[in-house]
Amino acid sequence: MLFQKVAIVGVGLIGGSLGAALRSRKLAAEVHGIGYRTTTLEQAKRRGCIDDFTIDLGEGVRNAELVVIATPVSLIEKKARETAENISPNCIVTDVGSTKKIITERLDAVFSGKARFVGSHPMAGSEKRGAVNAAADLFEGALCILTRTPNTDENALKAVEEMWREVGAATTVMTPGEHDRRVALASHLPHVVAASLVNIENDSSLECAATGFADATRIAASDPKLWCGICLDNAEEILAGIDSLSEELDSIRTLIKKGDERGLFEKLRRASDRRRAWEQERTRQNPE
Amino acid sequence: MLFQKVAIVGVGLIGGSLGAALRSRKLAAEVHGIGYRTTTLEQAKRRGCIDDFTIDLGEGVRNAELVVIATPVSLIEKKARETAENISPNCIVTDVGSTKKIITERLDAVFSGKARFVGSHPMAGSEKRGAVNAAADLFEGALCILTRTPNTDENALKAVEEMWREVGAATTVMTPGEHDRRVALASHLPHVVAASLVNIENDSSLECAATGFADATRIAASDPKLWCGICLDNAEEILAGIDSLSEELDSIRTLIKKGDERGLFEKLRRASDRRRAWEQERTRQNPE
Repeated sequence: MLFQKVAIVGVGLIGGSLGAALRSRKLAAEVHGIGYRTTTLEQAKRRGCIDDFTIDLGEGVRNAELVVIATPVSLIEKKARETAENISPNCIVTDVGSTKKIITERLDAVFSGKARFVGSHPMAGSEKRGAVNAAADLFEGALCILTRTPNTDENALKAVEEMWREVGAATTVMTPGEHDRRVALASHLPHVVAASLVNIENDSSLECAATGFADATRIAASDPKLWCGICLDNAEEILAGIDSLSEELDSIRTLIKKGDERGLFEKLRRASDRRRAWEQERTRQNPE
Repeated sequence: MLFQKVAIVGVGLIGGSLGAALRSRKLAAEVHGIGYRTTTLEQAKRRGCIDDFTIDLGEGVRNAELVVIATPVSLIEKKARETAENISPNCIVTDVGSTKKIITERLDAVFSGKARFVGSHPMAGSEKRGAVNAAADLFEGALCILTRTPNTDENALKAVEEMWREVGAATTVMTPGEHDRRVALASHLPHVVAASLVNIENDSSLECAATGFADATRIAASDPKLWCGICLDNAEEILAGIDSLSEELDSIRTLIKKGDERGLFEKLRRASDRRRAWEQERTRQNPE
C-alpha cells in the first residue's frame, strides 16, 4: 500500500487506467474519481477504475495523499488551481500531461507552499478515449517520464516514481525542457504528420489505402481537442520538428527528382536499419 | 481448379503467400517457384508455398498457364523479358508490383504477341520479408487493383481477377495512371514519410518513443531496395504527394506559430473524423 487516499481529477483513458491499476494492485486504500458527468463516473466505477466519485473537486481531493490531475493539458492549470485550495500542504500532486515545460512552470507556482508537485508523463494510451477503454495493464512496459525542477521535492518525486513503477512502467527523470524537446520528436510530431497525411487524401486514394496507411495514420484519430492543446503548449519544439521533417522530405524529394538511386537507397536503408534496431531494443526491454 | 500449372517468379512474401493460397484452396494443379537461391526455395516448399522449384526461369515457366512475376519492381521488366522467351502465346502473365504505369507500358510491349499480360497490385504485405513470413491468408480482406490498358485481353483480365478473388481479395480495375496516382497518396507517400520521421529522430528522442511512434513508423522498416525502386518508378506522383504534404505541414506550422487554436482544432478535427470514418468503412467491409 503506497497511499491512503488517491484522488484522480479527470477519469478518462489515462486517469481511469491508473485508478484501475492502483486498485487491482492494492496500492491505495481508496481511489476517488472527480469528473464532470455522473454517468461517466458511474461507468468508471463499474469498470473498477475508482472506488467512489464526486463532481465536486474540492470535496474529492480533500484529505488525499496524492492527487493526479489527468485532464487534457488545456485544463490542467485550471484544475490545479482548484485543487490547491482544498488540500493539505503535505499532499503530493502530479499530472499526466503530454507537455511539461509550461505545465511545470505554472503548477510549481500554483502549488508553491500548498503542496508538493511533480510532473509526470506516462507514455501510454491510444487513440481511444474515456474510462470505457481504461485498462489496469495500460502502463505495463510503458515509459513514464518524470520531471525535476528547482522546486521539486525529492521525496515527492521518489513517491510518484515508485507509484508508476508499481503499476508497471519504467521511469526516467529529466527537466521539463528536455522532456518537451524529446517528446516533440517522438510523439507530438508523428501526430501532426499523421493528421496531415489523412488531410491530403481524397476519396479515391482512401479507397486504395491498406494496412500501411492504417498503421501510419492510426494516431490521427486521436481526440483533436487534446492534441490541439498539446501542439499549442509545446509549440516551439513542435515547430522545430516540423522544420526538420520538411528538410528531410525536401532532401528525399530532390533525390527522387534527380533519380538518384544510390542517395535514395541510403536514406531508406538508414531509416529501415534504425527502425529495426529500435524495435529490437524495445522487444528486449519488454519481452512478451 | 483455375489453372493447371502456375509459375511464380520470385517466391518472397507476396509470391510465397500467393503460392500457399493457391495450393491450400486447390486453385492450381501445380505451383512452381522460380528464384535465385535453392535454400530459400526449399524453405518455401517446406512451408507449403510451392509444389516444386527451379532456379532456371526458362524451365520454370514452360507450359505454365499463368506466370506471376513477384519480384521487387526494379527486377520485373528483366524477369518479364526472360519469361517472354519461354512461354506459349496463350499463357497469362501478371505481376504484383506496387507501381503500374511504367510496368504495364513495358510489359505490354514485352508480351505483345507472346502472351496475355495483366497488371496486378495486391495491397497486402508487411514490413516483413521472404517466404518465411508467407501466409495463405495474406490476401483475405485485402484489395487487389488490376489494370486495364488498350492492350489488355479481357478474358485474361477476368481470369486474373477471379484468381485474386478466390484467394480472398476484393478486386477493382483501373488504368495504370489512376492506380499510380491513388496509391502514391495511400501507400507510397506514407512510406516516405515514415522513413523521414525515423531519420530525424535522435538517440534521446528514440528513448522516449512509444506505441504512437511504433505504429506511425512501422513501414519505415520495409525493404529499402524494394521501396527505392517504387519511389523512382512512381516518381512524378510521389513528388506531387510530397508537395501536398509539405503544404499541409506548412499550414499547420502557421496555425501553431500564430497560436490559432480554432484553425488548428479544425485541422485536427477533420483528420480525426476522416480517419474514424475510414476505419468504420473498412471494418464494415471486413468484419472480423
